[in-house]
Order: sequence, then structure tokens, then C-alpha cells
Amino acid sequence: MAQEQLSISDIPANITPREMRHIIREGRFSGPTSGLCPGYAQGNLIVLPKEDAYDFLLFAMRNPKPCPILEVSEVGDRFFHTSSADCDIANDFPRYRVYRDGVMVDDPMSVEDLWRDDLVAFLIGCSFSFESELIEAGIEMRHNTQGRNVSMYITNIACEPAGKMSGNMVVSMRPIPYEQVVQAVQISGAIPKVHGAPIHIGDPSVIGIDDISKPDFGDAVDIHEGEVPVFWPCGVTPQSVVMNVRPKFAITHAPGCMLITDTKNISLKF
Amino acid sequence: MAQEQLSISDIPANITPREMRHIIREGRFSGPTSGLCPGYAQGNLIVLPKEDAYDFLLFAMRNPKPCPILEVSEVGDRFFHTSSADCDIANDFPRYRVYRDGVMVDDPMSVEDLWRDDLVAFLIGCSFSFESELIEAGIEMRHNTQGRNVSMYITNIACEPAGKMSGNMVVSMRPIPYEQVVQAVQISGAIPKVHGAPIHIGDPSVIGIDDISKPDFGDAVDIHEGEVPVFWPCGVTPQSVVMNVRPKFAITHAPGCMLITDTKNISLKF
Repeated sequence: MAQEQLSISDIPANITPREMRHIIREGRFSGPTSGLCPGYAQGNLIVLPKEDAYDFLLFAMRNPKPCPILEVSEVGDRFFHTSSADCDIANDFPRYRVYRDGVMVDDPMSVEDLWRDDLVAFLIGCSFSFESELIEAGIEMRHNTQGRNVSMYITNIACEPAGKMSGNMVVSMRPIPYEQVVQAVQISGAIPKVHGAPIHIGDPSVIGIDDISKPDFGDAVDIHEGEVPVFWPCGVTPQSVVMNVRPKFAITHAPGCMLITDTKNISLKF
Repeated sequence: MAQEQLSISDIPANITPREMRHIIREGRFSGPTSGLCPGYAQGNLIVLPKEDAYDFLLFAMRNPKPCPILEVSEVGDRFFHTSSADCDIANDFPRYRVYRDGVMVDDPMSVEDLWRDDLVAFLIGCSFSFESELIEAGIEMRHNTQGRNVSMYITNIACEPAGKMSGNMVVSMRPIPYEQVVQAVQISGAIPKVHGAPIHIGDPSVIGIDDISKPDFGDAVDIHEGEVPVFWPCGVTPQSVVMNVRPKFAITHAPGCMLITDTKNISLKF
């Protein structure tokens, strides 16, 4: 029986990452995690069979901006141990996507029944992690203010391929007032493990985005007069790879619905 | 027939990395590369059969301080293409070490005759890369002044294991005057892809070094009154792993005898 769903306004501000993961694990929260547990790193997920793991690990190494690796599980182990304690990979993300032959076939809140002994899980840094520092610096996160998921787009920027893995970079977009752009670059640039500095500032068409009001993932947000769209490499990039190279089986998180780790952002700076 | 050997004082100051690699490829230089081609990144090597490549790549990902990956070759390809153009992995390092079952069996100047279709080469950042910036800041590199190889030690710091790979961290040591230590930390810390900031400053015994006058690799250097030994993670760490876990076959560079790449240090900062 489906659990009653909490909205982000039901979550106490001082909740710990572990408490939040337990709420998610119990199926009581299935939405985007932006704004939850400020100061703690959030993570994207891709799970692949071991036979695809070397190619993906090499892909991530060659593309550290969209795919900064926070942790890689042991083969068949359904738990992360380093970035978080007591962390169930198959239940602690609010929502998942299941891909077969590159096509999304399901978006469940648990993938426990799909877990296999040959799976390897890759946890990838997420730009939600540095949002709390941007907010601290007085930079509004429009998607938070509007109660929406962040806008994400598939660009024309080809990632460096590795073995069978290839595909274009996905980016997240935040509208930033011109006078805060430099600060946003510097603050985010200080944490490369959660994507670091923006990949593009200004003209969406330069990176192959034809219509900024129609994101490929997440929601559109308002861009006000005097603001510029700023684009960060995004950990949804592996999903663009999966759609491109069509591996037999993959599990990812649903865009915006991240793992909230026990790892403080500040520990990722060094 | 053995080529006549050049010493570092025979090398013109304005030599390019490509020219230097050609001198090395022709067998005319077989010594340590510290001080050559300032401003360009130098690299450590480990070559393993494909069957060991996933474990090593994961080991490097989990231990980015001693093992920051600059490039990984395609399986069986004897050339690097990204960090340098026209770069022969089997000939462009001044000297190699060949390990069988974890024991060094040879230290040739070429490993061309040992190359196999199943080999993968990992190029790992080297602290020689940031030495030119330290020198620019007025910090003496004692091993250069004394015409010696840098001092390297196997520590008691266990690396994070991955699959069958495990072992203790190797460090390089430079004596630094107390008043320049902070600057040395800040300058090197800005380039994590070539090891970044020191791992220890001060007391060698804290990291398991009993006698600083007896390095495990390279040469001892003088430490003057008013100087403190500063220890950086070192790309010879994979050799400590090879000696520990004894894979059937591995090739590495000889400690201190690095690949000089076409990659500028500054491009590794971002």
C-alpha cells in the first residue's frame, strides 16, 4: 500500500541526512531533494552490471565535470559505506529510473526487487550540494523559490568516450543576476567533486539548447530581467549516455531525486 | 649498442616536451626528469593487463591524492594521445621497472619488446609538475640543487583498497624553510591533479618513516637548520601496491624518471 507522501514543507529544517534517508526508505518522500540538509553533499546514481563497470568508470574519469565520482560500491553490494553509513542504494533515493536497452521502462520508489549480484553502483556528485553555499552568499535558487525541480538540458557538448560509453553532457541551469555571476562561479568552482564551476554562462544556443523554457529533465523556471542563465555540468549525464548507447540494463535515480549523504561539502574541497 | 648518455646540464633550457621525449626515446637520457621542461606536467606510469585494470582504476579513484589519473590508454594501445601527442608509452620514459609476481626483474630503458595486446597504461600526475611554481616562488628544490633524485619513502598510511589492489602510500619529501611552508602548501594545493597539497609536514615518524636519511626510492638530500621535511603523496604508490599484492605482470616507470607531457600545469588547475 502506498505511503502517505510528505512534501518538502513537512520536513523539519534540522533533519539529519540519516533521518531523511530513513523517511525516503520508508517510501514517505518521492520528490526532488534540492534544499534538504544544507551543507551535505547529494549524489546522482547509475547502476550497471559489472561487465559495463570498467567502461563507465573510465568514462567518469575522462569526464570528471559531469561525472565526479563520490563512491563506487563493491560488486553486488547494495549498500554504500564511505559517503554515508547505513545507506541502502536500492531504497534511499526518492525515486529511480529503470532502463532496458536504453529505454526507461519504470520509475519506481524502490529497486530492491531488481538488485542482482553482478551490479555496481556509482554515486556521482550533484550540484544541489553547493546550492546551500550560493544561498548563504545571497544568491537565490529560483527552482527552490518556485517550488520546482531544477531545469536540466541535454546539450550538444560531446563527452569524451570510453569503451562503449559515449553521449552528450547534461547540464542544470540556474538564473543568476549579472552582479552575482562571478561569485557563483567562484563558490561552485571551489568544489569540483560536486561538478565545480559552470560549463557555460549566457547563451543557451551555444551549447545546443534551442528552447530554454523546455528542459529535457525537471521543470522550467522563470528568468527575470537582469539575470543570465548559468549552466553547470550535471550528474544526469549518465542517463544521456544510457539513452545513447543502450546497455541491456541500467538503474539511475530520477532526475532531481538524489541521495542525501553524510558527507559534508567542506570535506569535498580538499 | 648503448647510446651516449646526456646529463641534465647537456639539455637546453628551452627544450620542448616533444623534443625531450624524442631524446629519451632514442635512449640518450635515462636519469631523473625533475627540473626539465618547467611548466609542463610530468607523469608516473603503471601498466597492467586488462584483467587487473578495473581494480586499479577503482583504486586510483579511491586514492586520488597519490594516484591522480591524467590519462588511461585504450587496451593494447602503446601510445597516449590526450596528455601528449606522438607519445610512445614503451619508450618515452627514461627508465622502466618490470615486475613479475611483485618482484622487480629488470629496469630497462625501453619496454617495447614486452608490449602486449592486453595491456592498459595509467598515467598518474607527478609532483615534479608543481616544482617549477615552487621555484618561481623562491622555494629551493634541494634535490635539484644537489643534483640528486627526489627522496621517496613508503609510509605507514594504508591506501583505501579496491578489489585485489592494496598497499601503503609512497611520499616524496622536500625540505622547506619554516617561513615558506604555508606558501608551498598553497601553491601545490592548487593542482590536485599532480598530487596537490602535502600529506604531512614535520615529523617523519608520524607517517612511519624511521630514518629520513634512508629513502626507499631516490636519493637522500640534506636538510638544513630551520627547515622542515614536507611530504607529498607520490605516484610511486602503485609500485608499493605491486610489491604488496604481487600481480603476475606489471610495468612501471623507474622512480624519478617520468614522462614529460605536452600538458601545461595551468590546464590541470581547472
